Amino acid sequence: MTAIAFPLHTPIEGFEVIDGELAIGGQRLTRLAARVGSTPFFAYSRALIEQRATHLRGQLPPGVHLHYAIKANPMPAVVHLLAGLTDGLDVASGREMRVALDTGVAPDRVSFAGPGKSQAEIDQAVAAGITLILESERQLEQALQAGRRLGIEPRLALRVNPSFELKGSGMKMGGGPKPFGIDEARVPALAARIESEGLALVGFHLYSGSQNLSAPALIEAQRLSVELGLALAAPLRRGIRWLNIGGGFGVPYFPGDKALDTAPVLEALAPLAEKTTRAGDAHLVIELGRYLVASAGVYVARVIDRKESQGQVFLVTDGGLHHHLAASGNFGQVIRKNYPVTIGNRIGQAEVSVQSVVGPLCTPLDLLADRMLMPTAERDDLVVVFQSGAYGPTASPSGFLSHPESIEVLV
Amino acid sequence: MTAIAFPLHTPIEGFEVIDGELAIGGQRLTRLAARVGSTPFFAYSRALIEQRATHLRGQLPPGVHLHYAIKANPMPAVVHLLAGLTDGLDVASGREMRVALDTGVAPDRVSFAGPGKSQAEIDQAVAAGITLILESERQLEQALQAGRRLGIEPRLALRVNPSFELKGSGMKMGGGPKPFGIDEARVPALAARIESEGLALVGFHLYSGSQNLSAPALIEAQRLSVELGLALAAPLRRGIRWLNIGGGFGVPYFPGDKALDTAPVLEALAPLAEKTTRAGDAHLVIELGRYLVASAGVYVARVIDRKESQGQVFLVTDGGLHHHLAASGNFGQVIRKNYPVTIGNRIGQAEVSVQSVVGPLCTPLDLLADRMLMPTAERDDLVVVFQSGAYGPTASPSGFLSHPESIEVLV
Repeated sequence: MTAIAFPLHTPIEGFEVIDGELAIGGQRLTRLAARVGSTPFFAYSRALIEQRATHLRGQLPPGVHLHYAIKANPMPAVVHLLAGLTDGLDVASGREMRVALDTGVAPDRVSFAGPGKSQAEIDQAVAAGITLILESERQLEQALQAGRRLGIEPRLALRVNPSFELKGSGMKMGGGPKPFGIDEARVPALAARIESEGLALVGFHLYSGSQNLSAPALIEAQRLSVELGLALAAPLRRGIRWLNIGGGFGVPYFPGDKALDTAPVLEALAPLAEKTTRAGDAHLVIELGRYLVASAGVYVARVIDRKESQGQVFLVTDGGLHHHLAASGNFGQVIRKNYPVTIGNRIGQAEVSVQSVVGPLCTPLDLLADRMLMPTAERDDLVVVFQSGAYGPTASPSGFLSHPESIEVLV
Repeated sequence: MTAIAFPLHTPIEGFEVIDGELAIGGQRLTRLAARVGSTPFFAYSRALIEQRATHLRGQLPPGVHLHYAIKANPMPAVVHLLAGLTDGLDVASGREMRVALDTGVAPDRVSFAGPGKSQAEIDQAVAAGITLILESERQLEQALQAGRRLGIEPRLALRVNPSFELKGSGMKMGGGPKPFGIDEARVPALAARIESEGLALVGFHLYSGSQNLSAPALIEAQRLSVELGLALAAPLRRGIRWLNIGGGFGVPYFPGDKALDTAPVLEALAPLAEKTTRAGDAHLVIELGRYLVASAGVYVARVIDRKESQGQVFLVTDGGLHHHLAASGNFGQVIRKNYPVTIGNRIGQAEVSVQSVVGPLCTPLDLLADRMLMPTAERDDLVVVFQSGAYGPTASPSGFLSHPESIEVLV
């Protein structure tokens, strides 16, 4: 194991280097590319996913479950792997639900959140016996109707729009008017409505933000979430089974980002979990997507041209924003910054130079690395974009300019 | 025909309103939605595309050809329609080339630009007999090899990276180091290399920017492009057949944008076309994508929930950024602004209020309208996003959260 250093980027750890080549799953990159059959592709390391999930789960205090939010990477093989390494799967659409259930996971370990569930999706979820996390009065009524129609007792939880936010998050999901969940003030009425139907509420879901690298901010949001959840659960006649306090654990993408120190965050969960067990005979759920998979994945594209224009070197590759929009800096980012990018078959090469990596699209947006110092590359070399295991192909405009779709492998 | 006014947005023109409903191709929106069978969908008006292309082509001075850049909307029916209304089709990938040729257009009316053409794509283009617009020395050598291998004389043009830019463009394609085309200074050597193979250069392609709403900026870029193109053509023994000076005509998306006044732009082309015919016995090509189709298209999504959170109203729809990333403000935009959005089955309704339109995805990025004044809507109403005929489905992350893909109709 070698740490591969980037100027200003957090060093990438965990990947092997064999004879100057990045290796994934024990395979050198040039061999892996031949095995995949064509470039570009996303490769996810089974070992690194296992390592991260196992390590994290091992550190969780008693009374805390770990869920995988499959939206981060819904590749079936990845979901299957994580189904065996976590306590549950969280889905965000009918299709994600099918991928989750195809792994053989028990339906009561699957939950479905989403502000715009269709009637068909609500029916699907009730019929499957998974937990529906309701986000509006309308969703509640449709779920109750579906239960009556299908003759099945629906498993219902409520998503709460908290009045606080997860400070410093990449995306804020609480603290202000939001389309997600139900405002705190309206939750008691909905919970009472569920109990009046003779149903027990399975739990509360509180999600205050994502992609956060600050342990103190996460600790604070966890504390507020548990406080709010327990307060909302207190008046219930039949209690709850769990409190999902979201996740929000971030990964370092850009120069200057520091990896999240999870130790204090997990440590701070212990008293919260105890309190939750004591007060409500319930457990906590931590729901992580990106954090479990992002660092285990790379995007690999082949250099098809090396061009100079007015003194600047461009490595033109067969991959680009149509596969990896986030790495191009065009998905909800205000200022474009470089992902960690290098030449995967020239790790440690002495000759380095400033090069830009672009894709094949006729747009200046198609930029994977803007003037980065990296090993000097030639045609047929393999460009590697790290931190690419989450929100890659599914978060990218794959039809843009009608180029071939990307390939994914779990190795 | 009624002009539908938006606060601050340029009024939308050309669409019919029947009984308070937007109509496309003579069909009221509710009927069209029933005919499509499900929401969300993109609907493109055949009449509006025809009208714009015919009007524009009618105003072009002699010696100027109009091309459609199919990347803006590669739906086969749209490409077929525009193949009959323009002088040629411009493609950006092997798959776009197949869509173009499927219309039955003559191969010599199709040209292929792109900084990262693969060997396979170069072979395809040579075999098809379309014009390859070369963007590097490597592409030239591969095209010559393909010609020898296939026993076909390749049709070759050169893309030039101009030293000037199209001022005020949404995207700049010239003026500085760029991965597109060949720096001016290196063009003569490549042109000579082509002639030394006994081939005539078909033309020069100069593309200095896109999505521009300023007539003076476009006029200036056209003048510079023709000047440069003719200077590069002058030393050639066999001359050129055309000079593609790009397009860059923009459409008004956001509050404050003013529609481009094309009249002076087209007028200014007349002396340039004359000069080009005189100097080089060649014609000019104007290449437009977005301008021909954007305003003819709408995106239609159904309201599946009307929610309030802390006093703000959210219309939750079944459509969102996974179909229409640009309208969500997350595709290369620094500051999010609203597209023109309204409730398509409540045009002219007296009761209006401030509402936000969101999609079904679990992310705050999934926002189609941020606090806009529009007809007060209920569940099952149809939200319409105008200016959606270009860079819609193909420029959006259709797999995001595994929701159903969008549907497209040409009516």
